[in-house]
Amino acid sequence: MRLVMKFGGVSIGGKQGISRAIEIMNDFSKKGDQVVVVVSALPGVTDELVDISEKAAEGNLSTIDDFVPRLRELHTLTARNCIRAPDLLSRVTDEIDQTAKELEGILHSVARLMELTPRSRDFILSFGERMSAPLISGAADDSGLKTKWLTGCEAGITTDENFGEAKPLLDLTKRSVKSKLEPMIAAGILPIIAGYCACSPHGTTTTLGRGGSDYTATLLGTAIDADEVIIWKEVEGLMTADPRIEPKARVLDKISYAEASEMAYFGAKAIHPKALEPVIEKQIPVRIRSSYNLAAKGSLIAGEGVVRSKGVVKAVTCIEKVGMISVAGAEISGLAGIASKVFKVLNDGGINVLMISQSSSETAISFVTPRDKLRRASNVLELNILGADYVKNIIAEDDVCVIAAVGAGMRGTPGVAARVFGAVAKKGVNVRMIAQGSSELNISFVVPEKDGPTAVRALHEEFELAKFADAIN
Amino acid sequence: MRLVMKFGGVSIGGKQGISRAIEIMNDFSKKGDQVVVVVSALPGVTDELVDISEKAAEGNLSTIDDFVPRLRELHTLTARNCIRAPDLLSRVTDEIDQTAKELEGILHSVARLMELTPRSRDFILSFGERMSAPLISGAADDSGLKTKWLTGCEAGITTDENFGEAKPLLDLTKRSVKSKLEPMIAAGILPIIAGYCACSPHGTTTTLGRGGSDYTATLLGTAIDADEVIIWKEVEGLMTADPRIEPKARVLDKISYAEASEMAYFGAKAIHPKALEPVIEKQIPVRIRSSYNLAAKGSLIAGEGVVRSKGVVKAVTCIEKVGMISVAGAEISGLAGIASKVFKVLNDGGINVLMISQSSSETAISFVTPRDKLRRASNVLELNILGADYVKNIIAEDDVCVIAAVGAGMRGTPGVAARVFGAVAKKGVNVRMIAQGSSELNISFVVPEKDGPTAVRALHEEFELAKFADAIN
Amino acid sequence: MRLVMKFGGVSIGGKQGISRAIEIMNDFSKKGDQVVVVVSALPGVTDELVDISEKAAEGNLSTIDDFVPRLRELHTLTARNCIRAPDLLSRVTDEIDQTAKELEGILHSVARLMELTPRSRDFILSFGERMSAPLISGAADDSGLKTKWLTGCEAGITTDENFGEAKPLLDLTKRSVKSKLEPMIAAGILPIIAGYCACSPHGTTTTLGRGGSDYTATLLGTAIDADEVIIWKEVEGLMTADPRIEPKARVLDKISYAEASEMAYFGAKAIHPKALEPVIEKQIPVRIRSSYNLAAKGSLIAGEGVVRSKGVVKAVTCIEKVGMISVAGAEISGLAGIASKVFKVLNDGGINVLMISQSSSETAISFVTPRDKLRRASNVLELNILGADYVKNIIAEDDVCVIAAVGAGMRGTPGVAARVFGAVAKKGVNVRMIAQGSSELNISFVVPEKDGPTAVRALHEEFELAKFADAIN
Amino acid sequence: MRLVMKFGGVSIGGKQGISRAIEIMNDFSKKGDQVVVVVSALPGVTDELVDISEKAAEGNLSTIDDFVPRLRELHTLTARNCIRAPDLLSRVTDEIDQTAKELEGILHSVARLMELTPRSRDFILSFGERMSAPLISGAADDSGLKTKWLTGCEAGITTDENFGEAKPLLDLTKRSVKSKLEPMIAAGILPIIAGYCACSPHGTTTTLGRGGSDYTATLLGTAIDADEVIIWKEVEGLMTADPRIEPKARVLDKISYAEASEMAYFGAKAIHPKALEPVIEKQIPVRIRSSYNLAAKGSLIAGEGVVRSKGVVKAVTCIEKVGMISVAGAEISGLAGIASKVFKVLNDGGINVLMISQSSSETAISFVTPRDKLRRASNVLELNILGADYVKNIIAEDDVCVIAAVGAGMRGTPGVAARVFGAVAKKGVNVRMIAQGSSELNISFVVPEKDGPTAVRALHEEFELAKFADAIN
Repeated sequence: MRLVMKFGGVSIGGKQGISRAIEIMNDFSKKGDQVVVVVSALPGVTDELVDISEKAAEGNLSTIDDFVPRLRELHTLTARNCIRAPDLLSRVTDEIDQTAKELEGILHSVARLMELTPRSRDFILSFGERMSAPLISGAADDSGLKTKWLTGCEAGITTDENFGEAKPLLDLTKRSVKSKLEPMIAAGILPIIAGYCACSPHGTTTTLGRGGSDYTATLLGTAIDADEVIIWKEVEGLMTADPRIEPKARVLDKISYAEASEMAYFGAKAIHPKALEPVIEKQIPVRIRSSYNLAAKGSLIAGEGVVRSKGVVKAVTCIEKVGMISVAGAEISGLAGIASKVFKVLNDGGINVLMISQSSSETAISFVTPRDKLRRASNVLELNILGADYVKNIIAEDDVCVIAAVGAGMRGTPGVAARVFGAVAKKGVNVRMIAQGSSELNISFVVPEKDGPTAVRALHEEFELAKFADAIN
Repeated sequence: MRLVMKFGGVSIGGKQGISRAIEIMNDFSKKGDQVVVVVSALPGVTDELVDISEKAAEGNLSTIDDFVPRLRELHTLTARNCIRAPDLLSRVTDEIDQTAKELEGILHSVARLMELTPRSRDFILSFGERMSAPLISGAADDSGLKTKWLTGCEAGITTDENFGEAKPLLDLTKRSVKSKLEPMIAAGILPIIAGYCACSPHGTTTTLGRGGSDYTATLLGTAIDADEVIIWKEVEGLMTADPRIEPKARVLDKISYAEASEMAYFGAKAIHPKALEPVIEKQIPVRIRSSYNLAAKGSLIAGEGVVRSKGVVKAVTCIEKVGMISVAGAEISGLAGIASKVFKVLNDGGINVLMISQSSSETAISFVTPRDKLRRASNVLELNILGADYVKNIIAEDDVCVIAAVGAGMRGTPGVAARVFGAVAKKGVNVRMIAQGSSELNISFVVPEKDGPTAVRALHEEFELAKFADAIN
Repeated sequence: MRLVMKFGGVSIGGKQGISRAIEIMNDFSKKGDQVVVVVSALPGVTDELVDISEKAAEGNLSTIDDFVPRLRELHTLTARNCIRAPDLLSRVTDEIDQTAKELEGILHSVARLMELTPRSRDFILSFGERMSAPLISGAADDSGLKTKWLTGCEAGITTDENFGEAKPLLDLTKRSVKSKLEPMIAAGILPIIAGYCACSPHGTTTTLGRGGSDYTATLLGTAIDADEVIIWKEVEGLMTADPRIEPKARVLDKISYAEASEMAYFGAKAIHPKALEPVIEKQIPVRIRSSYNLAAKGSLIAGEGVVRSKGVVKAVTCIEKVGMISVAGAEISGLAGIASKVFKVLNDGGINVLMISQSSSETAISFVTPRDKLRRASNVLELNILGADYVKNIIAEDDVCVIAAVGAGMRGTPGVAARVFGAVAKKGVNVRMIAQGSSELNISFVVPEKDGPTAVRALHEEFELAKFADAIN
Repeated sequence: MRLVMKFGGVSIGGKQGISRAIEIMNDFSKKGDQVVVVVSALPGVTDELVDISEKAAEGNLSTIDDFVPRLRELHTLTARNCIRAPDLLSRVTDEIDQTAKELEGILHSVARLMELTPRSRDFILSFGERMSAPLISGAADDSGLKTKWLTGCEAGITTDENFGEAKPLLDLTKRSVKSKLEPMIAAGILPIIAGYCACSPHGTTTTLGRGGSDYTATLLGTAIDADEVIIWKEVEGLMTADPRIEPKARVLDKISYAEASEMAYFGAKAIHPKALEPVIEKQIPVRIRSSYNLAAKGSLIAGEGVVRSKGVVKAVTCIEKVGMISVAGAEISGLAGIASKVFKVLNDGGINVLMISQSSSETAISFVTPRDKLRRASNVLELNILGADYVKNIIAEDDVCVIAAVGAGMRGTPGVAARVFGAVAKKGVNVRMIAQGSSELNISFVVPEKDGPTAVRALHEEFELAKFADAIN
C-alpha cells in the first residue's frame, strides 16, 4: 500500500507524541507500505508565530529576542528527548539553530521596517513546519528509518501568490510532486514533508490557509496516487458529537466526502472541505485516526459507494460564539436586490456568514455571523442599507448558537426535520431560525445559547447516535 | 366613522357586483359614516390593457381597432345595466366614449411609433380605473348618492417617476389628498377614486405596481385619518388555507400587520406588504370583507395589541410554479463573497428570489425562484459564477413547491417546527429545503410538487385551523 | 461612367433648383453615364422637423395641425411647379398627401404620449427626405427620365440602432445596396434615394447624423463601385476661405481626403470626415460642384497621388462662437492624470472639445469648446476637479475665435508656422493658444474674436490663396 | 534678514564644496542674518540608495555588504577632510557609523524579506540626508558656528503617507516647524535640516519626491516667515539656455514664480513648480545662486510686481529623449470621449505626458511622452483604443525633441509666435507639432531630434537672450 500520513498538533506533542509517530512510521514501513509523511508545526507554535509576527511589525525587538531562543529551545529539547545518536542529534540541532537564526533575521527585518506584508507573514508562519520537519526526520532516522525532509516547496507544491490562502496550481503541483517524490520512494527513502507551506512558481513562500497541513497531505496523496491518506490526530476519529457536551458521543466508522465537508464546524476533529477536494476525483480514502490508540480504526472518509450506511443523522454539533442579524423590509420588486446588497456590504466588510435564511414572504432576510463580527456587521448594514429602498430595520442578537445535524441519509427520507425539531421541542427549546439547503446533508437551526447543549443531547439521543454509529436508524 | 373602502375585481363584476357595492355605500352613508371609495378596473380589464399595450407596440392596429370598441361596449353595457336615469346614463356613456377615444388615440400612437415606453405603459394601464370610476360614480348617483369621481392624480396621490412601480411621495401626498378630499367630504359628497394610478409632480401618469388599488386605499386612509380601511373582495377574508386544497379552510377573524405582510404569497386574498405600510404608523385597521356576505365580519388586520390571539400557526399556503437552485462549493474564506456574487448575478438578471437557505457548513447556498425564471437563473449563474472561486456545481430542480406557515404565535413558542415537520412527516412527505428567519413569523419549506396539497392539509389539521381560527391552539 | 450624385439644400430649392437638378440628371444620362441620385430634404425642412418634434413632445397639437398642412403645401406646390403631366403630378401629390398624413399621425402620437424617444425622433426626421424624394422622382420622370425612388432603408443602407448617429453595418450595407440597385441600373432605371435616413436590421428607421446625405452618397458609391461621387451644392466647391470674410477667396481645384477631413469646421462647403470614410478604401473621388455653374469643375477630393499640388496652406477658416478654458496646477506625478480627469469630466458633461493644448511645462492644459457650452464646462470642472490634486485654478474666456489653416503641403515644409504667425503678427493680432498635431495638416490658433477676420485675410494673402489655388506656393 | 538656504549636489561636493557652504553660513551669520540651512545628500548618494534598495529586494546581500562600508567611508573621509577638532570629528564619525549600521540593518531586512515596499524605499532613501546633515553640522561647528542638525521629521515637516511623493500637511507643518525652529534661532543656534525626507503624523518616514530638498527649504521658509530662500547650486542661476548647446547663454537676473514654474524641464538649474507653491502665498523670494561665485547675485524668483521686465521670451530649452504619438480617427460625436479614453489609458499605464495638441479638426490628438515610455504608450493605446469607436490609427515617432520658449512677456504681445517660428524656419527646421496654452507663458514645439540645438540657438539669437537678459527685447 502507498500511504500519505499526516501528523499534526498533539500527535507530535512532546517526546511521547513523536515516539508514537515514529513507531507508526516503522510499523507501516515494516509491513512493506510505501509511506510519505506530512508534519505540521509542534503544538501551539503556529499561533505563537502569528503573534510574534504582529509584535515584530510594531518594532518590538525585545519580544523577538525573548521568543526566538524559546522556540529554538523547545525544538532542541524535544530533539534531545527523541534522538539518541549524537551525530544525528547534532545534525538536527544544527539545523534548528540555523533555522532559528534565519527566523530571527526575518523577524528583526520586519521589526526594523515596522511593516508586516502578507508575503512576510507567510514566510514567518512557515517556520513552524520548517523546524518540526527536520526534528521528526532526525528522530525517525534515529529509529532506523531512512528519511529525508523537504519543505512543501521542495516537495513540489506550487501555488498562486494569494498569500495567507494560496491556491495550489494543481497540474503543476501534481507533475512536480511526482517527479520529486517518486525517485525517493523508489530509493527506499521515506519523505517527510513540512505541511501547510508551499511556494509560488517564483519560489516565494506561501501558506495554504486553514487546514493547510491536511491539504498538503491530500495534495501529495493525489499526486503520487496513494491508496489512502491518514490524518493522525489526538482523537480517535470524527465523532457523533462533542464529548464534552454529550458524553455518550461515539466515533463514526465511515462517512462520505460530502458529509465530512458539511462538518466544517465540528471542531478539531473536522477536516476542511478544501482539503478533501484533491482526493475526491480519484476517490482516495482519507482516514482520521488516533495515534494514541492504534487498535482503533478511526473514521474513514470515502465515496458514497463505499460508506453507504443506514444512518440518517450521523453527527450533531453546536456552533457557539455566533450572533444573528435580521434585515427587514418589503422588497418592492421581489428581485434579489436586497440580498445582493446585504451580502455585498458584508463581504466588503470582511464579515463571515455561517447561515442564511429568507422565508417565502420576502420581508426579512436573516443570517448568522461570528459573535465578534456582530457589531461590525450591524454597523456596516445600518450605514449602507438602512433607509434605502424599503429596508425598515436591522436587528442583531448575540445570545444564540447554531445547532447543526449532518447526514447523507436525510436526503429523501421523510420525517427527519420532524424528528429533529420534535426532539428539540420535547426539551422545551425554542427554535429561532432554520436553514436546510437542497443538498439535504445538513439541517441547521438557531437556539438560545443556553439551550445549545440540551439541543445537541436531544438530537444525539433521538437519532441513537450513541449506538454503533453505522448500524442504526 | 370615517371609512375608506376599496372595491376591486369580482366585487365590481357585472351588474350584481356593482349593485352590491352601491348598496354597501348607501348602507354606510345612511349610518352616518363618512365614506371614501377606491375602485379598481372591472375584472380582467387591466390584464387586457397589458396585453393590448404590447400588441400595440408591434404596430398591430387591427387588434386595437378590435379591442377598444369591445372595451367601450363592456363599460357602456354595464352602465346601461346599472343606471336608470337617462341623463346620468348619457353622462356616463359620454364619459366612457370619450375615454375610450383617448385610449384608442394612445394605442394608435404607440402602434404608429412601434415603441412602448414605461411611461406610455403606465398611461395605458391607468385607463381601466379611468373607465370604471365614472361608471360606478354614475351608478351611485343613480341610487341617490351624491358622488364625484377623481383619478388618483386628481385625488392628490403624488409619486416619483419610477414607472410601473412608482413610489408615493408621502408628505406631499398626505397634504395634497387632505386638501382635495376634506372639502368634498364636508360638502356631503362621496369621493370615488380611480385606484392604482397616480401622477408625478409634473403631472405625468404613473402606476403603483402590484397591489396598487389597495395601496391607493391605505394612502387615502392615512391622509384623511380614516377609522378603518375596508378592502371588499369576492371572498370573506383572509383564510387559513386555500379552500381548493383544504376544504375545511376558514376565514381568519384577526391578524396582525406583520402576519398579513408574511402572507404575500397567499393568493388573491392577500394584501401586498407595501399596501400596509401607510396605515401601520397610525395603526389604522384594515378589514378584508366579502361584498357577497355582509353578515360576515371578514378579517381584521391591525396592530398586535388589538389582534393578540392564542393561535400559533394561523395560516398555511402552497406556492406553486417555483423551482429550486443549489450553488455548491467550498467557500474558501468563509466570507459572504459567494452569496454576494450569487445574488448580484440574480438581481442583474431580473430574477426574483422567494426563499434562501444556507446551512452552517457554508458549502452550498440554495434558493427558490419562480419556475419560469429557473432556466434563466441557472444560465446566468453558470455563465458568471461557475468555475470561478470554489464554486463546483449548480443544480436546478423544477418539480417542487414551497409550503409556508404563518403566525406570530410561533415566536418564542418551542415545538412549532417539530409540529410542522412532524405533521408533514406523518404523511411521508420529504422536506427538501427549509428556511425560517429570526422574526419567527413564517416557516417555509420545499417539498416535491405532488406532495404540496398533502403538506398543506397536514399542517391545517395539525394546527386545528379548521376550528374558529382565533380560539384555538 | 457610373456616378452617384447628391442634391441637397439650395441645389433642390424651389422650381429653379429642382429643374437644374433634373437637367443635370438628363445631361449625364444622355452622355451614357449610369447615375444614382441621393436627395436631401427641401431646404429648411429638417430644421423644421426637429422643431416640430420637440413641440409635439410638449403635447402641442395646434402647432402640429398648423405645421403639417404647411409642409404638405410646400411639397405640393413645388410638385405643381415642376411636373406637368397630370398623371405624374397626381401620383406625386397623392404620395405627398399620404406621407404627410403619416407624419401627422406620428406627430399626434408623440403629442398624445408627450414623450419624444430617440427612435421616434429619427423616424420624424426621415420625413424630409421621404417627401422630397418622390417629388424629385416625379419631376425627373416628367422630364423623360425613368426613375424610381427609394428610402435609404429600401436602398439597403443598414445601421445599428444608435438613433441620431446610427453607424452603418458596412458589409451588410454593401451587399444589400448592390442587390437592390444593380438590377435597377441594368434595367435603365435611375434610382433616387432619400438621403440621411436608413434602418436597422429590424427595419426600424434610423438617421445618419451630421452630414448624413453626403454619407448616404458615399456609402452607395462604394457599394456599387461608382467612378465618382458628386455632391451638388449651391457653391462652386470648397473654398480657400469664407468669401464673406475674404472676398478674394477662390474655389480649390483639388484637395486630398485627409485635407478635406481637416476642413470639418469650414462651414456649408465642407464634407463631414465620416462621409469620406467609405470612399477612401476604394479611392473613389468625390467632387463638390455647383448646380448653378455647370461650366465650373468644382473641387475634387481624392487620394494624395491624384491631387498632389504645390500648395502649402490650402485654406483658412475662422471658427466663431467658441470659448477657451485653462486648467492650471502643478501635475505632481507628471502622469496623464489631470488630462484624464479633465476630459472625462467634459465627456460626461456632454461637452465638445475643438482644440487642446498642453505645453511642456505640464502646469496648465487649455482647450476650446463651443461658446454655449463654456459656462457648463467651467462649472463641471470646478465641481469635479478644482481643489483636488494640485489643480489651482480654472479660467474661462469667451471673446475668442479659432483660426485654422489646412494643407498637406505643410508636412515636412520648414517655415510654415513662421509664415502663419508672421502674417498674423504683422497685423498686430495677439495669438492666445496654439495647437498643431503631428499630422501637420492643420495648424490652429486662438485669437481675440474681433481679430478673427483680420487673421483670416492675413493668412489668405500670405499664402497667396487668391491665385489659382493649385498653382501656387 | 531671516534666510533659509539650501545646499545640494555639487555645492556640498567634497571638501571644497562643504568648505564653501560653511564659509557662506559664516558670512551671513556674521552679517547678523538668521540662517536656517537645508542640505541634500552628498552628490550621487541618492541615486546609489535607489539602486541598492532595488538590489536588496533581490536578496543581494553581498552587494549590500560592499555598498554600506563604501558609503560610510565616503562620509567618514569627507568628515576627516572638513573637521579638525578631534572631539567633533569623533562625534560625527560615530554618528555616521551608527547611521550606516542602521542602514545596513534596513537593507539586510529588505534582502531577507526580498520585498521592497514603498514605505521601506522611502526609509532607505532618507539615509543620504541623514548622513550628510550631521557631517555638515560637524564641519560648521568646527568653523566656530553653533549648529544642530535635525531630520525633516524632527524639524516638523509632516506629510500624508503617499510614499515616494508625500504631500505636506501644510497647517500642521507650519505650526510644528515654527515651534521647533524658533526657539533654536532665538538661542543663536543655526539649524541644519536634512532635506527631502519628512514623516507622517504616525512618525513613519516619507520623502517629498522630485525636487524634495528645495521643497523642504521653501516649506521651512514659509513656516518661519523667511525674507528669502536661497538655493545654492553649482551654477550661477537660471540660464537663458543650456550653455552646452548655446555658449552665449547667460544667467537670468529675475524671473517670476510663474515663469520659473514653466521651466520644469530646464535641467539641473530649474526648480520644481511644487517647490514654489509654499512661498507664493507670502511672496517670499527664492534666489538661485552659485556657491562658487559669491560675487554673482544669481537669479531671483519672485512675484510679477518685483520682476517686471521688458523681455518677451526669457529662456529656451530643448527636451530630449522624448517621442511623439498621434491617435487619429473621426470623433463621431465631437465630445471629449476619445481624449478622455486616451489619457485614462495613459494614466493607468503610468505614462507621463509632456505636451498635448489637438487642432480644430478633431481628427487627431497628438502628445509627447518620454522616449523610454513610447513603446509602452503605443502598446496600451493599441490594446485599449484602436478599433473601438472611430480610432483608425496610432502612430509613434521617436526621433524628435521638444523646444520650449518661456517668458511672461509673450502674454498679450503680438508677433511672438511669428518670431519663434520665423527664427526656426530661417534655419530650415521643420516643426512637427505645436502647443501654446492660454497662459501664454510657454510655447512648445516638436522638431526632429537632430535639429534641436539649431532651434535653441535660433531662438536664443532671435530674442537676443545673450544680451543682459533683463534689458532686452
